[in-house]
Amino acid sequence: MTTLTVALGPRSYPIHIGTGLLGRRELLAPHLAGSQVMVVSNETVAPLYLDRLAPALEGCAWDKVVLPDGEQYKTLEVLNRIFDALLARRFARDATLIALGGGVVGDMAGFAAACYQRGVPFVQIPTTLLAQVDSSVGGKTGVNHPLGKNMIGAFYQPRCVIIDTVTLDTLDDRQLRAGIAEVIKYGLLRDAPFFNWLEGNMDALLARDRTALAHAIERSCRNKAEIVAADELERGQRALLNLGHTFGHAIETGLGYGTWLHGEAVAAGMCMAAEMSRRLGWLGEEERRRILALVRRAGLPTRPPGTISVARFLELMAVDKKVRAGRLRLVLLRRIGEAVLTADFDETVLRESIEASGREG
Amino acid sequence: MTTLTVALGPRSYPIHIGTGLLGRRELLAPHLAGSQVMVVSNETVAPLYLDRLAPALEGCAWDKVVLPDGEQYKTLEVLNRIFDALLARRFARDATLIALGGGVVGDMAGFAAACYQRGVPFVQIPTTLLAQVDSSVGGKTGVNHPLGKNMIGAFYQPRCVIIDTVTLDTLDDRQLRAGIAEVIKYGLLRDAPFFNWLEGNMDALLARDRTALAHAIERSCRNKAEIVAADELERGQRALLNLGHTFGHAIETGLGYGTWLHGEAVAAGMCMAAEMSRRLGWLGEEERRRILALVRRAGLPTRPPGTISVARFLELMAVDKKVRAGRLRLVLLRRIGEAVLTADFDETVLRESIEASGREG
Repeated sequence: MTTLTVALGPRSYPIHIGTGLLGRRELLAPHLAGSQVMVVSNETVAPLYLDRLAPALEGCAWDKVVLPDGEQYKTLEVLNRIFDALLARRFARDATLIALGGGVVGDMAGFAAACYQRGVPFVQIPTTLLAQVDSSVGGKTGVNHPLGKNMIGAFYQPRCVIIDTVTLDTLDDRQLRAGIAEVIKYGLLRDAPFFNWLEGNMDALLARDRTALAHAIERSCRNKAEIVAADELERGQRALLNLGHTFGHAIETGLGYGTWLHGEAVAAGMCMAAEMSRRLGWLGEEERRRILALVRRAGLPTRPPGTISVARFLELMAVDKKVRAGRLRLVLLRRIGEAVLTADFDETVLRESIEASGREG
Repeated sequence: MTTLTVALGPRSYPIHIGTGLLGRRELLAPHLAGSQVMVVSNETVAPLYLDRLAPALEGCAWDKVVLPDGEQYKTLEVLNRIFDALLARRFARDATLIALGGGVVGDMAGFAAACYQRGVPFVQIPTTLLAQVDSSVGGKTGVNHPLGKNMIGAFYQPRCVIIDTVTLDTLDDRQLRAGIAEVIKYGLLRDAPFFNWLEGNMDALLARDRTALAHAIERSCRNKAEIVAADELERGQRALLNLGHTFGHAIETGLGYGTWLHGEAVAAGMCMAAEMSRRLGWLGEEERRRILALVRRAGLPTRPPGTISVARFLELMAVDKKVRAGRLRLVLLRRIGEAVLTADFDETVLRESIEASGREG
């Protein structure tokens, strides 16, 4: 087991990464505020892993709330089912929520924890690669709105993140690939050596080689933890973690949540950001090709869906949390391993980049 | 105009109290993050005061969302209308929300601000006495759940509170009295001289004497600001502000939100707390009588509604944010001017106090 720390002063917390961690009571127990525990999971994950988690909850007054599986259920309405469950059990402010599932479960359980009685503790137990390398760490929680992705939420840190890599054994290939998109993101935005490593080890990752996966998870979490520690509330560099996300969120909202997986949309979004970065003269054509090649090798889309027009893209991108004073700001690439947040571009270039991304491979 | 400060370090903010403040741009402008402003109000207040606020918003890209009036609309579902309005206008993270209305509007606009894009600035412009003396100050925001009052929310401080006492001119008597309940609360829990003053000036308050009202508002806000500054997140003494509220919330939830006004329920709740404090031997009978007499003179209920059984009361009170490790904690009175948060009582006494409160005047 490896343990990393997200250093946030009094709100610092550990990320435990290893195999067979799910049932280990000693990892969980220090982070439970009282004896009441509500496990939030979904219809796919609960039947697979709730039993394995149970030993770690022995002696607790625990219950579960099982949500439907999929991004289309990450809504205020479904969130309310968590509150219903907590109140039906009369759980108090010293109850602890546990998110057992992927990014959707983690985002919703975290947001429910942020809001229930104005804040109760919560623990992340991510079971998808995407949640393990990205969404379970850093305290971004929330739900979608029909007009915009992740538009309603809170910054609310978990007390602990427990990553049991055994859960990846049951993850389907499409979900695994979606997680790899966020792994590639870290290489692109701040860790060129990791990008190089990914170029050499993509086949191993796709073959679910345990050592390769463990390295990818640890390296991703390390990158994430560093950025979050430096900028918890996204006043600056944390925004760089949104590389590919403004394009990606437009794809998710435009197609309808759950049509493309989040990681798939981010993959195409990173390729679009690369295209735009090249057009601005920042990124070399060879680097752009390396990025597209790696994304393609991961079995991820390099192009946006053909059904979203350029005009619709621009409209969808106008609702983005990085907009300031009416200006859209985008995370673009100076080179592989260096990203910048910038509003310093002409809309024409953005428009042409979207167009070209749809055409090219 | 008087200006108080809620001292919370980098999140400190002013409370401006005076007449004719609504249209004063210089009070509002420093607290707007960008040019986008969404005014959240309700069907009663918007027609009365939106026009007076408008001059302060000149030059802003502002819009309004008008909610139905009443505690029964303080729900997650109605909250979503604020998000709909913000996203329909594509308001960004540098938009500012303004709450123009009573406690329900303030709680909902504040919670919407806490959650929209994970947090945008907001300003409180309370237009009821209750909101002016209590709910607009201190950053408690949220909505109700059918099973419990204020169960979903956030601690989220406004950037500024602007109290224009002119708005009280249109407040109906019942609402005015409900506000006085929270005024009495400050005297009871920590400010005996203020309680004495209220005994001498209740008639003036009810007659809407401007000087008396201004004093009551300022003194209440001063008490509230001190407590919030000392204990923003209710780890300790802030809980004392809940005097009468555990009983009161049970009344509100039990009758259905909006049947009794919040202040009415708190008034009866304070009398119930006084009864229980007397039974525990903490409060003298004479003091209890003084409390009931003042509440009665304010035209407020001193007894809970007869339709809620003792068993139902206990059930409703079990869902309270002050419950810890399965123990209900209550704010009770040592004497007029001194409250304590305690779990040190027998349920029999609680039961008998509820019973007796229903019987006695």
